[in-house]
Amino acid sequence: MTSTPTATQTSAHPADLLLQAMKQAGSPVCVGLDPVLERLPHPLNPQDASNAAAAYAIAAFSCAVLHAVQGVVGAIKIQSACYERFGAEGAAALDCVFREARQLGFCVIFDAKRADIGVSTEHYAAASRALDAQFTTCSPYLGADGIEPFLAEGRGAFALVRTSNPSGDLLQSLALADGRTVAEAVADLISQIGAKHLGQAGFSSLGAVVGATKREDAIQLRKRMPHAMFLVPGYGAQGGTADDVRACFREDGRGAIVNASRSVLYPKGTPGQSFDAAIHDAACAFRDEIAAVVGPMERSCG
Amino acid sequence: MTSTPTATQTSAHPADLLLQAMKQAGSPVCVGLDPVLERLPHPLNPQDASNAAAAYAIAAFSCAVLHAVQGVVGAIKIQSACYERFGAEGAAALDCVFREARQLGFCVIFDAKRADIGVSTEHYAAASRALDAQFTTCSPYLGADGIEPFLAEGRGAFALVRTSNPSGDLLQSLALADGRTVAEAVADLISQIGAKHLGQAGFSSLGAVVGATKREDAIQLRKRMPHAMFLVPGYGAQGGTADDVRACFREDGRGAIVNASRSVLYPKGTPGQSFDAAIHDAACAFRDEIAAVVGPMERSCG
Repeated sequence: MTSTPTATQTSAHPADLLLQAMKQAGSPVCVGLDPVLERLPHPLNPQDASNAAAAYAIAAFSCAVLHAVQGVVGAIKIQSACYERFGAEGAAALDCVFREARQLGFCVIFDAKRADIGVSTEHYAAASRALDAQFTTCSPYLGADGIEPFLAEGRGAFALVRTSNPSGDLLQSLALADGRTVAEAVADLISQIGAKHLGQAGFSSLGAVVGATKREDAIQLRKRMPHAMFLVPGYGAQGGTADDVRACFREDGRGAIVNASRSVLYPKGTPGQSFDAAIHDAACAFRDEIAAVVGPMERSCG
Repeated sequence: MTSTPTATQTSAHPADLLLQAMKQAGSPVCVGLDPVLERLPHPLNPQDASNAAAAYAIAAFSCAVLHAVQGVVGAIKIQSACYERFGAEGAAALDCVFREARQLGFCVIFDAKRADIGVSTEHYAAASRALDAQFTTCSPYLGADGIEPFLAEGRGAFALVRTSNPSGDLLQSLALADGRTVAEAVADLISQIGAKHLGQAGFSSLGAVVGATKREDAIQLRKRMPHAMFLVPGYGAQGGTADDVRACFREDGRGAIVNASRSVLYPKGTPGQSFDAAIHDAACAFRDEIAAVVGPMERSCG
């Protein structure tokens, strides 16, 4: 809660903005905002069962988290589903949280996992720009049509390649006739599309979601996508280890951003500690842990 | 605009509700609501450039479409992206359009193409239930985690299997080592998950999106998913022919619902005709065209 990162500029390349955010934080990390009513700290419990009360509560909690981790991490990943479930009130809360996050200087990833045929993806991309998200997560199942619109007007995207959930194997780990896995074929597609969108540091505005739970896969995928920034969920709560995380970075120690959601949002804390102080401490611990895994920030963050 | 379909019951199985909606319409068709500002009829142009004005305009147009096609088709597919792009006001419009559609007795498919890890998919499923959508479209890339939550509490889903857009081939048509394509592997997964969720007519609450533009694929996929209802986009505007559509149905003439969006929403009409009368006529023509392709409604919808 000390230094404020410089406000990000939408005119700069999104990958360069993300690198800058990680460098200022001193660690390649982001905090995921996945607020759920059942786990809100007591002072923020909603007043009644209405969508409006729920949306106010998660907006208040989300903004408290933003302030608690400001100066600790430079990037925030906002999970759309947690807000959407509360309808128009949830969408208003989402908009409010985005505005606060951008105002505080965070680089913001909209975790929406959208994709559709081209004309509809363009509407989704317009929604992301209206929120002023630097990045949107998207699904590769519809091919380039579901990805490229998110790269328009100086914005970035992270396409799902290898997800951290167990059932992701059902499709992603299938072997193709040419020897690749489905995830590797998607990686090649992402690499090909992304090559047209490189920033000053050599990273593309099209990154890849690669879970921290699949070390061997991460090693292969890292080789196939040298210019893609990896967004790495699954560390800690979902079982990813330091070795798993390390495999997501290039040999020069760059190229990935590690996310933590639940372990930071809902920490145990210490007796008598306020919830936001506990979140601040958990974010610092996460930041330092990943910095230790990856190496000095000069190497890892550009 | 004559007979009103019986209001659907959320306690019934979603596949049975969809069959009932098609039977009442006399044709296995649905109309897709993909409203865009640039194509609204002149009387509904927004008053200014605000999100609120845009959201009012698309809500008004959407409700006009619902009334124009009531009694012509029994099911409506609502494209989330077209509303989302207008933020909280768009979400309020979406909610309003859903309430009107359900009030008018339509079976409603929420075309959102969502999916995430299990805990987040549950939030998306809650959002769909809050809208009272009978079906939600979802992506298979995360495996069962991104699909099964949409089947909870008596709701249904259509998982993307073979999409109608050209770049869908980049992933969906890849050949696996075991001889299947990626789309066929997804079909097997859908068939396996869906087998646990059959309704009285023998169809699953988990259906499949299979574009009308890939006839040979549709023939194979139909065999692999005998109990899945196919949601078939791409007819007409995207190049799908009568033969392509026919391949999506089982030999007994059942098992698919064909969608039309732009050709119904934005018809040429006749001189002096109101926009909603033109939409009504276009919906009737589409209904009759598909009924002729598939055969008598007793076979195709019952």
